[in-house]
Amino acid sequence: MNWKLIILGSNAATPTTDRNPSAQVLSCDNRLFLIDCGEGTQMQMRKFKVKFQRIDHIFISHLHGDHYLGLMGLLFTLHLSGRNRPLHVYANAGLRHIIDLQLKASDSTLLYPLVFHELPVQKACTLFEDERLCISCFPLLHRVPTHGFLFRQKLAERNLNKEKIDQLQIPVTQLDAIKKGSDYTDKKGITYLNAALTLEPPPPKIFAYCSDTAYNPSIVRYIEKASLLYHEATFMHDRQTNAGEKQHSTTIQAATIAKQAKAGKLLIGHFSARYDELTKVIEETRSVFPDADLAIEGNVYKI
Amino acid sequence: MNWKLIILGSNAATPTTDRNPSAQVLSCDNRLFLIDCGEGTQMQMRKFKVKFQRIDHIFISHLHGDHYLGLMGLLFTLHLSGRNRPLHVYANAGLRHIIDLQLKASDSTLLYPLVFHELPVQKACTLFEDERLCISCFPLLHRVPTHGFLFRQKLAERNLNKEKIDQLQIPVTQLDAIKKGSDYTDKKGITYLNAALTLEPPPPKIFAYCSDTAYNPSIVRYIEKASLLYHEATFMHDRQTNAGEKQHSTTIQAATIAKQAKAGKLLIGHFSARYDELTKVIEETRSVFPDADLAIEGNVYKI
Repeated sequence: MNWKLIILGSNAATPTTDRNPSAQVLSCDNRLFLIDCGEGTQMQMRKFKVKFQRIDHIFISHLHGDHYLGLMGLLFTLHLSGRNRPLHVYANAGLRHIIDLQLKASDSTLLYPLVFHELPVQKACTLFEDERLCISCFPLLHRVPTHGFLFRQKLAERNLNKEKIDQLQIPVTQLDAIKKGSDYTDKKGITYLNAALTLEPPPPKIFAYCSDTAYNPSIVRYIEKASLLYHEATFMHDRQTNAGEKQHSTTIQAATIAKQAKAGKLLIGHFSARYDELTKVIEETRSVFPDADLAIEGNVYKI
Repeated sequence: MNWKLIILGSNAATPTTDRNPSAQVLSCDNRLFLIDCGEGTQMQMRKFKVKFQRIDHIFISHLHGDHYLGLMGLLFTLHLSGRNRPLHVYANAGLRHIIDLQLKASDSTLLYPLVFHELPVQKACTLFEDERLCISCFPLLHRVPTHGFLFRQKLAERNLNKEKIDQLQIPVTQLDAIKKGSDYTDKKGITYLNAALTLEPPPPKIFAYCSDTAYNPSIVRYIEKASLLYHEATFMHDRQTNAGEKQHSTTIQAATIAKQAKAGKLLIGHFSARYDELTKVIEETRSVFPDADLAIEGNVYKI
């Protein structure tokens, strides 16, 4: 159960020499999910050795350029590298037209099926589900329709309580059934309930992605108990008014949301280009939510 | 009269870790012209300290992604940095719709006037002219409508032949008229023709940009005597068939065009990602046209 988040871009609208626009790769047991795809994302993936041919699902939070302008280049590169597996893109409806128009302008037909999934208007819904995880979206509060994304691990099987199994000398042939939830009855006819034979599995891993958004406590219900919460913190708190006007959040606001959501850990990003140095940005965040970190290009955060 | 070319991207369709997609900045006496704008161009300009607020004219050769996907991000960045001077974009008509659709998707109105100039279909024409230079386009041979660009310095005024001026003791008050082409008549009534009083100015600087194109000698008439010719050389010559199919050129073909055009110097670029190392690429080019160089990111070529 190995989940980790790789940061490819952490900056707000205009890139700087060190910081790229938004993009992150979530690796869930070696499956890669790309979340947002600002300009230069494919170069960042090469730089940080992310095997982008293995990405099958791309999630775009909204159609401001710093969150999707790298997508078209990536689609072309996947095409030119001979991809034939389907690629799923989840985004607001407008992106489909932008992609189609650019394919037409270059007289290109992608070699692989591009499956476009329209995000619902101002609604939460499940986007993808299999036996191992569930991915959903929920509305954020921004100047154009914007979604957050939630990656939730499916609850694992209970673990065998080996001590108890040994003590009762339960035959190996019974163990699979017990793992799946069965009780056990021994030769004497005594029944042991499953709860006595197994241990609670670890809590499911949850990653929540919230960029871009004004301070909006109504999202807390979607992201409760996230193991890792990424929340934008474009500004320091002295620019609270500015943040409100632009429908972005401050450090203190991101930390407050993390606290309300009882998140395990908070990662902040989407930093305004005005902050060359981020020490004060993280210090201010930790004053409200101590287990907070900066999203930094190339850093990998274990979940 | 200081002309120089700064390379921002030299690679063909897919970027590599070292090489970005096509983009160059031509500086003509400190006026900056951007030619093509592949993904990541704005980051490259920051990296190489090109003052991109000073760019007023952007030329896009064609609508394959590796030649224009960085434009939208640059337009947004100029907007966010408070630009209000008009920006002229010269490109195929389709780009206007791509820009408009993306502005609409992000609910943005640029703060500055964006003046879009449609390139003519398969034709040459003048795009820009003032007292110092003339910029024109001409058709190339590629899979989608593609143009080359020509930057031609206006012929400078003739230089005074100081020796002759001294010898004839011509009064200073007459010199301006002579510089502008007048003859001179002295007190005795003897007339000296302008050609005897002045010297030929240096030949005009000419920069020609040809990317992407199949081998096409019919372009030679447009680029004759270019001081610097940039010509794509996507492949080495053993892949001549491949080049023909994809309507690209080889090293030998680029060098042959340079020779036919009597170019001063040749710069090759748009290298296929299959060539990690470019020594053999330039050696093969020089076997036909010795004064040839590789376009390398960050290099500045004096014209």
